[in-house]
Amino acid sequence: MHTSDPPPVRGFRFGAVAAGLKKSGATDLGAIVADGPVPTAAVFTANIVRAAPVVLAAERVSTGRSRAVLVNAGCANACTGAPGMAAARATTAAFAKSIGCAASMVLPASTGVIGALLPADTVVSAVPSLVASLGPHRAMDFARAICTTDRWPKVAHATLDGITAVGIAKGAGMIHPNMATTLGFVVCDAVAEGPVLRRALRRATDETFNRATVDGDTSTNDTLVAMASGASGGRALGTRALTQLFLPVLDALARSIVADGEGAKHVVTVTVSGMDSRAGARAIAASIATSPLVKTALHGQDANWGRILAAAGRAGVRFDPSRAAISVGGVPIVARGVTLGVEAETRARTAMAASAYEIVVHLGNGPHGDRYVTSDLGHAYIDVNANYRS
Amino acid sequence: MHTSDPPPVRGFRFGAVAAGLKKSGATDLGAIVADGPVPTAAVFTANIVRAAPVVLAAERVSTGRSRAVLVNAGCANACTGAPGMAAARATTAAFAKSIGCAASMVLPASTGVIGALLPADTVVSAVPSLVASLGPHRAMDFARAICTTDRWPKVAHATLDGITAVGIAKGAGMIHPNMATTLGFVVCDAVAEGPVLRRALRRATDETFNRATVDGDTSTNDTLVAMASGASGGRALGTRALTQLFLPVLDALARSIVADGEGAKHVVTVTVSGMDSRAGARAIAASIATSPLVKTALHGQDANWGRILAAAGRAGVRFDPSRAAISVGGVPIVARGVTLGVEAETRARTAMAASAYEIVVHLGNGPHGDRYVTSDLGHAYIDVNANYRS
Repeated sequence: MHTSDPPPVRGFRFGAVAAGLKKSGATDLGAIVADGPVPTAAVFTANIVRAAPVVLAAERVSTGRSRAVLVNAGCANACTGAPGMAAARATTAAFAKSIGCAASMVLPASTGVIGALLPADTVVSAVPSLVASLGPHRAMDFARAICTTDRWPKVAHATLDGITAVGIAKGAGMIHPNMATTLGFVVCDAVAEGPVLRRALRRATDETFNRATVDGDTSTNDTLVAMASGASGGRALGTRALTQLFLPVLDALARSIVADGEGAKHVVTVTVSGMDSRAGARAIAASIATSPLVKTALHGQDANWGRILAAAGRAGVRFDPSRAAISVGGVPIVARGVTLGVEAETRARTAMAASAYEIVVHLGNGPHGDRYVTSDLGHAYIDVNANYRS
Repeated sequence: MHTSDPPPVRGFRFGAVAAGLKKSGATDLGAIVADGPVPTAAVFTANIVRAAPVVLAAERVSTGRSRAVLVNAGCANACTGAPGMAAARATTAAFAKSIGCAASMVLPASTGVIGALLPADTVVSAVPSLVASLGPHRAMDFARAICTTDRWPKVAHATLDGITAVGIAKGAGMIHPNMATTLGFVVCDAVAEGPVLRRALRRATDETFNRATVDGDTSTNDTLVAMASGASGGRALGTRALTQLFLPVLDALARSIVADGEGAKHVVTVTVSGMDSRAGARAIAASIATSPLVKTALHGQDANWGRILAAAGRAGVRFDPSRAAISVGGVPIVARGVTLGVEAETRARTAMAASAYEIVVHLGNGPHGDRYVTSDLGHAYIDVNANYRS
C-alpha cells in the first residue's frame, strides 16, 4: 500500500491538526476543502442506529453539492441524541464560517467511541489551526488524522486520461465484516454531474467495499464521500468512465482495510463461479470469506478445503457439493466434491505462503460468479483451530 | 457444569474405547445402546454439505425407532463421497451384528476433521472392546470419548415425576455460532410415542441449542438424537411434558458449550424485549450475541452499550433507537437511547464480573421478546477492541 504522498488533485486542499480528542495527542481532526461548491455524493451505513454526523451529512449531501468535509477521530458522536446533533451542527458551522461558506456546505464525519458526545468546544477551538494547515499536499496528514485502530494510513490514487482521483480511508478488517467504522473520501478533478457522481460512487463501492470488509450494513458511522472539482476542464464524464476512475482507488483502499486486520498476513480473494445467479455466488463467497474456521486455516497455511466447502454449504444457497471443484493459489485440490490427494494439498500449502492469492470455488451449477476479499485470522483462534488438523 | 457421573437411565448402556482415531491415544469411539428397539428422533445440520453419517442417520431414523448410536471423534467422515458412505455402513453393520440387531437400527455420528475418510477397519477392530465396555454407569466415559476441542465433557440430567433424562454433548462455543460440530444425545426412560418424541426434541432444541452456539444451520456433522426406552412404565408422556423434561437438560448442555468458548469467562444471556414480533426480537438478540465487538467488551467487563445498540441496529429489523433501554447485570445504563451516566456504567462493570449474568435490551416497540446465550471473547481480539475505550 502507498504510504507516500499522493499527487495533488486540482481544486482540493487537505488539512489536519491535533484537537485533543485522541488521548495519545496524535492528530485527530481533518478536513478536505474544495475551492468552491462542487458536485458531491455519499453512501452511508445501513444501520438503523445512525450517528449524528451521518444524519446531518445525509441531509446536507442531498442537495448534491458541498464545499468540504470535516472529519474527527477519537469520538463517534453516535447515540448522543439532541446534544450530539447540536455538536455536529456547531462544529461544522464554525468550520464553514472560517472558510467562508454556509454551514450546509460542510459534511461532518466522525469515528471513535460510540456513546460519547463530541466535545464541540474542543473542535471549534482547533478550527483556526486546521484552516491554517490546509494545503494541496497534505492528503497523507489528513489520512493519519482520521485513523483509529488502523495500523497504517490508507491512501490510493489513479490517473486516467489526465484526470486524477485520490482516495483516503480508515478502518481495519476484523474477523467479521461490518464491525468497525469505515470512513472513505475520494476526490477528483473530473467534470461530473451530481447524478453521474452518485451512480459511479455506488457502483464502485458495491464492487469494492461491499465485497470486502464493509457491507453497507455496518457501524453507526460508516460514510463514503465523493467530490468532483471539475478543475480538469473538458467534457463531463459519464457514469462508466467515472466508475472506471474510482474502481482502482476504492479497490486498493478496501484491500488495505482487509490487510489491516488483526494479525493478518494474507489478503485472499475468494472467487465463486459456476452458479445460477450472481447473488447466489456472492452469498457463498461471503460465507467462505467470513468463516473464522476458514480464516484460521488461511493463517495456518492449511489448504483445508473441507472448511471451505462446509462454509459454502451454510450460505443458504442450493448447489450440488458432488460437483464442487476448488483451487487454492492456482493449485487444484478438490474435484467432484472430493480431495485430489495429499500431494495437491501440499503444493497448495506452498502457494498459501504468498501475501496475496486467490481461492476459486467452482460449483458447476451455471454461468455466474462473484468474489469477496478477506484476510487470514491469527492469534488466539489458531490455538484451537489452525493446528487442529496436524 | 456436572462432571460427575449422572444417574443411570433404565434401558440404556453406554460405552467408550480408544480405537486409535485420535492421535493423542485418548478414547475416541463411543456407543449408547438401548435394551431393544426404542422410539428415536433426531435433528440434523441444515448445511447443504452433509457428512456421510448424517445422511445415513437421517435415513435410518425416519423409521422412528432405533437400537443404538455409534459415535466417533477424530474424523468427521464428511466430503468423503461414496467411500465415506461405505465406511459409515460398514462400521454400524459391525456394531449392529455384535449387539444382535439390524444395521438399520444403529445411527452413526462423527466429529473431527472434514474431508478425511473414516478408517472403517480401525473402527471395526475396536467394536468387540466397545461392546465389552457397555454399562449403565459409563455415560461420562462416553461423553469424554466424543470430545474434540472441548475443554471438558458435557453431561446434564433431569428427573421429573420419577422419569430420568440424561444428556451428553460435545462442542465448544466460538466467536460465531455455527462454526464447530455439535453432537448431542439425550436418553430417557419415559414412555413416549415417536411423533411426541420428535416434537419435544424439536421444541426443546429450538429453545436451547438454536438460541446458543448452534443455530440449526451449522457444520456438516451436527446431530442431536433423542431416545426413549419406556422403562419407567406408566402412561405415555405428551409433547408438553416431554419438552419440559428435555428443556433443562438441553439448556444446561447448550450453556456448557457456550462456556467452553476459547478463553470465555462469562456466560451472558442477551434478552431483547419490547418488540412487535418474537422473530424480530430473536434477530436482534442474535446480532448482539454474535457481535465480536460486544463479546470483547464483555471480556473487558466494559458496559459498552454503544456497541450493543449498534449491533441491534444492524439486525435488519426496524425499531426506534430513541426508545431503547438497556440494563447489564441488573443495572440500568441506557434509557431513551442515551446513557444514564458514568456512575451507572461503573456499577454495571462490577456486575459484569459475575460468571453468568443477563443483558436486557428493551425497545419499547411491542409485547414480544426473545433471548440468546453467548460468551465473552478474549485473547487476540481484546488487544484491539476490549481496551479501546480506556
